[in-house]
Amino acid sequence: MHNFEERGAAAPPRSAIGAAIAEFRRTPLLALIVFVPVVILLERVSPEAHTLLFLLSVVAIVPLAALLSRATEAVAAKTGDAVGGLLNATLGNLTELVISLAALQAGQYLLVKASIAGAIVTNTLFMLGGAFLVGGLKHHLQEFNRVNARFQASLLFLATIAILVPSLISEVDRAPAAAFSQQLSLGLAILLIIVYALGMLFSLRTHRELFASSGHAEEEEKPWPLPVGTVVLIVVTLLVAMVSEIFVGSVQVAAQHLGMTPAFVGFIVVALVGGAAEMTSAFSAARANRLDLSVSIALGSAAQIALFVAPVLVLVSYFVGPAPMSLQFWPGAVAMMLVATMAATLLSNGGRAAWYAGVMALAVYAIFGLTLFLLPPGAPS
Amino acid sequence: MHNFEERGAAAPPRSAIGAAIAEFRRTPLLALIVFVPVVILLERVSPEAHTLLFLLSVVAIVPLAALLSRATEAVAAKTGDAVGGLLNATLGNLTELVISLAALQAGQYLLVKASIAGAIVTNTLFMLGGAFLVGGLKHHLQEFNRVNARFQASLLFLATIAILVPSLISEVDRAPAAAFSQQLSLGLAILLIIVYALGMLFSLRTHRELFASSGHAEEEEKPWPLPVGTVVLIVVTLLVAMVSEIFVGSVQVAAQHLGMTPAFVGFIVVALVGGAAEMTSAFSAARANRLDLSVSIALGSAAQIALFVAPVLVLVSYFVGPAPMSLQFWPGAVAMMLVATMAATLLSNGGRAAWYAGVMALAVYAIFGLTLFLLPPGAPS
Amino acid sequence: MHNFEERGAAAPPRSAIGAAIAEFRRTPLLALIVFVPVVILLERVSPEAHTLLFLLSVVAIVPLAALLSRATEAVAAKTGDAVGGLLNATLGNLTELVISLAALQAGQYLLVKASIAGAIVTNTLFMLGGAFLVGGLKHHLQEFNRVNARFQASLLFLATIAILVPSLISEVDRAPAAAFSQQLSLGLAILLIIVYALGMLFSLRTHRELFASSGHAEEEEKPWPLPVGTVVLIVVTLLVAMVSEIFVGSVQVAAQHLGMTPAFVGFIVVALVGGAAEMTSAFSAARANRLDLSVSIALGSAAQIALFVAPVLVLVSYFVGPAPMSLQFWPGAVAMMLVATMAATLLSNGGRAAWYAGVMALAVYAIFGLTLFLLPPGAPS
Repeated sequence: MHNFEERGAAAPPRSAIGAAIAEFRRTPLLALIVFVPVVILLERVSPEAHTLLFLLSVVAIVPLAALLSRATEAVAAKTGDAVGGLLNATLGNLTELVISLAALQAGQYLLVKASIAGAIVTNTLFMLGGAFLVGGLKHHLQEFNRVNARFQASLLFLATIAILVPSLISEVDRAPAAAFSQQLSLGLAILLIIVYALGMLFSLRTHRELFASSGHAEEEEKPWPLPVGTVVLIVVTLLVAMVSEIFVGSVQVAAQHLGMTPAFVGFIVVALVGGAAEMTSAFSAARANRLDLSVSIALGSAAQIALFVAPVLVLVSYFVGPAPMSLQFWPGAVAMMLVATMAATLLSNGGRAAWYAGVMALAVYAIFGLTLFLLPPGAPS
Repeated sequence: MHNFEERGAAAPPRSAIGAAIAEFRRTPLLALIVFVPVVILLERVSPEAHTLLFLLSVVAIVPLAALLSRATEAVAAKTGDAVGGLLNATLGNLTELVISLAALQAGQYLLVKASIAGAIVTNTLFMLGGAFLVGGLKHHLQEFNRVNARFQASLLFLATIAILVPSLISEVDRAPAAAFSQQLSLGLAILLIIVYALGMLFSLRTHRELFASSGHAEEEEKPWPLPVGTVVLIVVTLLVAMVSEIFVGSVQVAAQHLGMTPAFVGFIVVALVGGAAEMTSAFSAARANRLDLSVSIALGSAAQIALFVAPVLVLVSYFVGPAPMSLQFWPGAVAMMLVATMAATLLSNGGRAAWYAGVMALAVYAIFGLTLFLLPPGAPS
Repeated sequence: MHNFEERGAAAPPRSAIGAAIAEFRRTPLLALIVFVPVVILLERVSPEAHTLLFLLSVVAIVPLAALLSRATEAVAAKTGDAVGGLLNATLGNLTELVISLAALQAGQYLLVKASIAGAIVTNTLFMLGGAFLVGGLKHHLQEFNRVNARFQASLLFLATIAILVPSLISEVDRAPAAAFSQQLSLGLAILLIIVYALGMLFSLRTHRELFASSGHAEEEEKPWPLPVGTVVLIVVTLLVAMVSEIFVGSVQVAAQHLGMTPAFVGFIVVALVGGAAEMTSAFSAARANRLDLSVSIALGSAAQIALFVAPVLVLVSYFVGPAPMSLQFWPGAVAMMLVATMAATLLSNGGRAAWYAGVMALAVYAIFGLTLFLLPPGAPS
């Protein structure tokens, strides 16, 4: 799920270090990786510099997310179609998952839920809108396979609805008995994991032709050798975990200093940072007039958050963190998720895109961001 | 609206009894009819065996619904196109109507409303989802006429919205003056009946080519002679009424024993039982790769509940039962109906189906069922 | 945006008066203009005759709206494509804007908000539904360009969502801090104006081929000379302002006498009166089997209310009227706007129309009207 814009012929690297150097040359974004040791050191030296730690950890996660995405792909490419597809599909949102796990362990459930909701909204409104805008500024009118897009959009709609049922029912019925909500969330999480597993069977085995296989083969870019990929995957996941812990530890105080609500941080900041690598892919696919791929990345990633990341976090919360977490979102998040999913459905329904459709989607995203920014702190609980 | 899976050449029956015997041979489900006398006798003998009466009456309604559907069709086939179409359209949900009337008479308004809401949700999510799954397991990718499907889906959306207006407005405005809600429901019921009548004019006269005429003529199955059909229609309706009364009389105590809320019973059990005959038709059409017919049955039946069954029940409630009934649904039911209708719109919008789309729709249905099952009893009032 | 149904060859008028006379002959509706001096005089003579003043002002606005629409077009036609398109797009809802400004000045914020919400709902359900019905009674099945319609519908959906965010968030979160809502509305208004300006760039410059240019050139109807157009534009705007002031001054007492709630007056009466000219155009285009134009007028006008009229009113409220106005709608209005926009999306999604689709949309509109009519006065505040 990545698509760095490389130029020229990349000489086949001979070693892990050679591969890494070649990679850096092609992707200037990776230079941000210097902030990883900086933030880890700073946390040892002055753990009270919350605002600085927060900002540095945000910057440090971006290149790690890009490397993670690249490594997942490399491992996937080498392990054969079935296992590879499985890995790619499962680890596609690994960054979001690791950040959320760190927040879960710290008992910051609002941050966890905000980042789930934010990832769905960001993937649909911001990633899809941005792809339409970026693509539309270069191409007058872009057509894409509307049948596949519609099919994926309807799956996304059902997935979003599924994780919203506890919120819809309890909120609306004003009978939010905690025990009922928790029981329902657990049953739901198990059901969603099963649906997700069936979805992989569907997209990787029975109906793989429907899903644009990311199509990186077309680009003259050699995947890393398997050992490089595996090592990078493990090391970078650990680094993301470390930086995420610093991020989660500093976010509350820092957000207060910077005048941001926790809802805004989870919804907008975590979602943008965690999805940076996929956004790069989706945007450069749009510029290359391959909007099918952009739509597929955006809708697929959003559906994965709903069907895989969210239920995994519920299940893990039984073993990690102070108390089990429910799938009860605050009402504003429910409204935003529903609206974003419907907007994604409508935008992908047309089968054609122009820059203004992107502007509209980004405007709605900006309005959501503005709302969360202005929201009196402590409003969603 | 039925489509038993017969095999071999059905010899033309010579009498009503012969027809009945031939029917039984082709449809093993009809054997369940033995439970009809059993449940009626049991109710005389031990009227306090609520749980057993409840279970037996549920089982007994299934074959009656199938017979009713078959008889309606037979009468419709023999009375000419206009009257026949009218009969078929009006009596298509006769089982649901008779059960709801029994509940209305007993003053169990929550059960009535739950069965209206449940029928809409079941017809869209369960019937459509099941058809997609059953069809998809046999056929890789099924295409259907998306223009007709979309047209019917937009009619269903408007019909659902129409019956939800009183709930949407009063709930949301938190000013549920009972008098206002009752007045509005009455006006609404009259308007809906008019819209329904115009809809029959539309689908049976001016634009009949848009609506897949169930197409049973293609099957080599002789409809019953008119007298047989008429007699069966009358007798079976009376039987359904008798069994429904037993069902309604036993449901509350039995549901408590079985740990089910009245909302769950109305929403899931009544809807599945009442729609069993149509589901058989929709599923076997899907297996025969005639998904157009499946979609038409599912969407048409859901629209009929909203435009005909619901307003008739409101109007009848002025003459039967302790007090007039409004169209005020509890908020969870509103959310479920809206979501189900939108899901149906999206699923039929694509114009193509595969097994996973069915899994997703059934998963959302399962989540709704789980929610209603776990709901603390008495929550929706 | 107008389309009077003329017959025969219209001789080119030689003067402003000649033009006016020719116009009157072709458009009998304009005869209602005699009520303009009548209502202005009556208000001087007996300012307490509220009910009569209300009724006369409603009747007087209809021909003024028609003239305004015609004059805007005349000026637009003579000032070249860019400025002309700009004028046409900006002044398309001038009548609604002037009425709302009069209500704003009088501090009647409920009336202002009801007329914004009502204009969106009326343009989608009533105008689109009416066009489908009127067109469908003449033509069996009407096809229209579904790709353009879908594109416009998705823009309308995003525009509606945008103005609803403050309502959705605050209502649902039950934390309607007035300051937060006001700040958000101001930021939103500025953002929407920018999006609207970009939308004009899009529809008038970069992608004008997507938008059915009203196509009046095809009709043998000479636009007025520029001076005539300009004079009529200015004079009629002043007259609309005068009559609107009388309307706003009389509406509250009159509504009470006539048994109508202020919500009903703003939502239904103002919206129907203010949009009369555009409706005439949309309906006669539908009868001429040019449903593309009807859909374009209806969806475009609704989007303009959301993206231009609503934010302008928020900004103007800082200079005019007792206090700044927020974009906080009462929940029933939010539900109606969302439903109407979704219905418009579904109806235009199909790409084909028949009379019954129009009946359904009009039925939902009638149900909304009935609800607002029956609503206990003072319910929405």
